[in-house]
Amino acid sequence: MAADARVSEDDLRAFVGRALRATGMRSADAEMVADGMVWADLRGIDPHGVAKLPLCVARFQAGGSQPDAEPTVVEESGTTAVLDACGAWGQVAGARAMAIAVDKAGRERLGAVVVRDSSSLGALGYYPLIAVRRGQIGLMITNSMPLLAPWGGAARLLGNQAYAIGCPAGRHPPLLLDTSNSATTWGHVKGVLERGESLPAGLALDRDGRPTVDPAAALEALLQPVGGHKGSGLALMWEVLTGVLAGLAFGPRVGSPETIGQRQQVSHFALAIDPSAFLPRDQFTERVDSLIDQVRSVPPAPGFERVYAPGERGFLLTAERTRTGIPLPEHRLAELCALADHLGVDRPRRSTTIRAAG
Amino acid sequence: MAADARVSEDDLRAFVGRALRATGMRSADAEMVADGMVWADLRGIDPHGVAKLPLCVARFQAGGSQPDAEPTVVEESGTTAVLDACGAWGQVAGARAMAIAVDKAGRERLGAVVVRDSSSLGALGYYPLIAVRRGQIGLMITNSMPLLAPWGGAARLLGNQAYAIGCPAGRHPPLLLDTSNSATTWGHVKGVLERGESLPAGLALDRDGRPTVDPAAALEALLQPVGGHKGSGLALMWEVLTGVLAGLAFGPRVGSPETIGQRQQVSHFALAIDPSAFLPRDQFTERVDSLIDQVRSVPPAPGFERVYAPGERGFLLTAERTRTGIPLPEHRLAELCALADHLGVDRPRRSTTIRAAG
Repeated sequence: MAADARVSEDDLRAFVGRALRATGMRSADAEMVADGMVWADLRGIDPHGVAKLPLCVARFQAGGSQPDAEPTVVEESGTTAVLDACGAWGQVAGARAMAIAVDKAGRERLGAVVVRDSSSLGALGYYPLIAVRRGQIGLMITNSMPLLAPWGGAARLLGNQAYAIGCPAGRHPPLLLDTSNSATTWGHVKGVLERGESLPAGLALDRDGRPTVDPAAALEALLQPVGGHKGSGLALMWEVLTGVLAGLAFGPRVGSPETIGQRQQVSHFALAIDPSAFLPRDQFTERVDSLIDQVRSVPPAPGFERVYAPGERGFLLTAERTRTGIPLPEHRLAELCALADHLGVDRPRRSTTIRAAG
Repeated sequence: MAADARVSEDDLRAFVGRALRATGMRSADAEMVADGMVWADLRGIDPHGVAKLPLCVARFQAGGSQPDAEPTVVEESGTTAVLDACGAWGQVAGARAMAIAVDKAGRERLGAVVVRDSSSLGALGYYPLIAVRRGQIGLMITNSMPLLAPWGGAARLLGNQAYAIGCPAGRHPPLLLDTSNSATTWGHVKGVLERGESLPAGLALDRDGRPTVDPAAALEALLQPVGGHKGSGLALMWEVLTGVLAGLAFGPRVGSPETIGQRQQVSHFALAIDPSAFLPRDQFTERVDSLIDQVRSVPPAPGFERVYAPGERGFLLTAERTRTGIPLPEHRLAELCALADHLGVDRPRRSTTIRAAG
């Protein structure tokens, strides 16, 4: 395996920030998006990390997303809001939406914000942590371009509707579920195709809606929902809370990020819950800690070293990458350097090169 | 296949009501529970229908649940409440919780109620419909006795954490997802064992946490979560919103309904969302109708006649059973008649007998 370059998280964050400012994004938004992308890289969620920056910049330059959009609250109550992202990059709109939900939950115990006219959120887990830092439970849902058929169907109608739930703990890192309703990702299917392998059963359907293990047949057709009708049903209900409630595109009308000149009209739903409405805060976090202790002490099944709580591995990897830097394949670093030159900003700085494990 | 008896929904509801009143349950609660059980039978969710009545009565008589418990709000804000079920039958507490959440959402746009010291809710889909009848979106979650290991583990820690989400439509019946986080149910595994068959792959684990297709090995061990870590993660987050927030038992301490002399300490979470906080009501229901139309018009995959929206088949079966009566296996009807005699109330009335299809 080729050696990866390493870039420190601080340097990578600074690079993403100056690249985004060069596109016309306000400083505070650029810092927030940089933080969100590097957060994903720290946790090993590479497709949602700096790997997305070139697409983000391309969308700004082609006019499909607006670097300087000012997301605006267009409907509001004490507990709820509709945030019109006005074509902003999704991470800007998503973070603002969760912050509004958290403010409302701080006053009213619950807060919910629906976002319209947005784009991709990147790694969903970033947003519930905005609630967790305020001692709240956060849920973030996004719809996406259609990838799934409703159960029993043979045509794309629903996104995989990624969602994340975060919950504060006491001694332990927060619980953080970051997941979706598809049985796998396009990235996984593409990787299988590139390696000339077959897919495991149960992950994809061909054009006629038949289960397939052929990654090429899958790529032109459908991912399977998690658990058949269960994942399909949840994906549909998440469409109600996002695209339907947001009042613009839903279902098959939600656009692809790759169509860089067009608004995607992605919608999100952010919910914040103040646990102290139900239980004194210390008791709550002690009980979460106890649940995490119980999870970790479950005897592992064959093939597993130990049992992890949701999100735990991401926090462990973050600690490691904070020390050792973020590994970037050479082709990725070269792409980012070319982007820096194109935007007229300083390139990211390589900190050291370590041969990748394995 | 043996012929089923048929009982009309009205007669069955009346029978369940008088049986429950005979145990000491207040009339309004008895009518509500009867409605909930018969609702499940109308939709073909037999294990949560009148099949549960003997267990319910047994729990009352053994003292594990209280027929005349008065669920009491012990913490409250404008948007939230904690409802202490005081050992009530779960359906009584669950319906009250959702009604409180709906009242709060009627005033504040959002409402959430956590229930402690409850028991089994029966069919989860019943509760969101309390919100749907008021034009709201409802989510109901329950924890349960442990059935699942957290992903990678080999010991029971989490319930299958059934949940249901309902959403009002306009021309169409509501959307109603009624699901859980286990890949199958104990009832299914027991049926496979009785028929001397093997389980499909991916449904269960044996005592050591190894995948098994042997139903006997599964029964003494573990169900698999839906989608591996995905279902396991959601089951854990649902435990946070139920058992952890409710302040009593959580995880492995939640009791079995079959231990009839002991409190189960089941917890629930009810959330109601007023969609008109985000979008005018008519626009919202028109958009839900449009989404349902799109789902129904997706071309079916091989082996499927057509694509159904979540909950649609249950509404269709309800319409049929409202006309033809509810089919009950003879052994079930005999059991209910014996229960009637035991409680000193009139037996359920057989309306007609039709040879079951197949």
